[in-house]
Amino acid sequence: MGRIKCVAMIPARMGSKRIPKKNIRLLRGKPLINYAIDLANQSQRFDEIWVNSESDLLNELAIGSGVKFHKRPVELSSDDATNKDFTTEFLEKHECEFLIMVNPTSPLLRVETVRCFYDLVVDNDYDTVLSVLDEYAECFYDGRPLNFSCEKKINSQNLSPVQKVVWALTAWRRSTFMKAVRERHCGTFAGKIGLFPIPKDESCDLDTLEDWAIAEGMLIARSLKKEPPRYWSRMTDDRVF
Amino acid sequence: MGRIKCVAMIPARMGSKRIPKKNIRLLRGKPLINYAIDLANQSQRFDEIWVNSESDLLNELAIGSGVKFHKRPVELSSDDATNKDFTTEFLEKHECEFLIMVNPTSPLLRVETVRCFYDLVVDNDYDTVLSVLDEYAECFYDGRPLNFSCEKKINSQNLSPVQKVVWALTAWRRSTFMKAVRERHCGTFAGKIGLFPIPKDESCDLDTLEDWAIAEGMLIARSLKKEPPRYWSRMTDDRVF
Repeated sequence: MGRIKCVAMIPARMGSKRIPKKNIRLLRGKPLINYAIDLANQSQRFDEIWVNSESDLLNELAIGSGVKFHKRPVELSSDDATNKDFTTEFLEKHECEFLIMVNPTSPLLRVETVRCFYDLVVDNDYDTVLSVLDEYAECFYDGRPLNFSCEKKINSQNLSPVQKVVWALTAWRRSTFMKAVRERHCGTFAGKIGLFPIPKDESCDLDTLEDWAIAEGMLIARSLKKEPPRYWSRMTDDRVF
Repeated sequence: MGRIKCVAMIPARMGSKRIPKKNIRLLRGKPLINYAIDLANQSQRFDEIWVNSESDLLNELAIGSGVKFHKRPVELSSDDATNKDFTTEFLEKHECEFLIMVNPTSPLLRVETVRCFYDLVVDNDYDTVLSVLDEYAECFYDGRPLNFSCEKKINSQNLSPVQKVVWALTAWRRSTFMKAVRERHCGTFAGKIGLFPIPKDESCDLDTLEDWAIAEGMLIARSLKKEPPRYWSRMTDDRVF
């Protein structure tokens, strides 16, 4: 793993509201959280891999899956507790150079993407690295055109992209994060920020039941046998569609 | 349909590059363009429904599917021709109050969404209505935070959304569009602009083969029998995942 100690943290609470118990819910036969565990394991980039949760059930699942378990205080698993709060509590207990949060809400991430993210983190001098989706599309903000002019339609691939934070992967340099927290600043966006674009078909963020259905569809699409395309023709048109 | 004449136009050329012949390619057994034709038909909101193409094959398909066919000049189907060009040529030949473009590249649209879009168009005084996806997420533009501050992490649902144009449905008031074109302005964004948010699981825009696979997976996910969710438990854990 080299000289830089890099720890993976997989945050998981049981009390998710919009998708109840989502971390242990089976997605295509596998508990959601195990997608993140498998990613972190298979990337072979982390000195330690921790599930961070208040739940004893997730403790059992984590240990059974071969990773470590950090039990956070129950009060850091309420709806009001923020990412900053439980990350701070975790970092107080674990020394490292970088913490990389692997989010279970992004089950479509590929191992190769985790490795590229890791490389960006350790090969640069960022304090915080956020994963983003580059949106090459006309965007409005506050009711006004943001990255285009109404005077001319141009090809959307030639627009300046808006970069949407997806929270699939996030890296923090421990020292910068903790310093920000001590000084009562925001650790989440502390120091020099780097942005890491992830592929569109990995960017699904599981927040609602609608997202769950989308993720399921995208996983199905990946598993489909690639067949040659078929086309409509007047000869074979039997109007089944 | 009331007093406002509203015409649907489904643009379709044969020469698509990244997904060859995509409009007649079968998606879950149905030619892509027939998703748009079915939507327009089933919405029961349009005085006329036209496929706009240079292709004789699409002419046959359109007529066989019970809609009208507008043959555009071949030069308006090249890679260089813009939406504005073929829409202008279409509107020169067809009188109406509003033209609504139903884009075959959005096969996940639902009929109810088309109806809501129509209502927004005819119940307001917009000249152009664009379909958008509301992105409630931290966004960077030009390397800088756009809708959030690095000083404070707030819940993303409380952010001001960035509204991304998806081109699934677009409406133009004919008179305003044609006036802009005559005055050598941009018809595409002419006059008073309205934005119509569409549901996230309908916003897939078919541009690449990757998008095609995603759309296929999402259609399969929709067709799955809704089963009750299943969860991991220590009792039944046989580690197949």
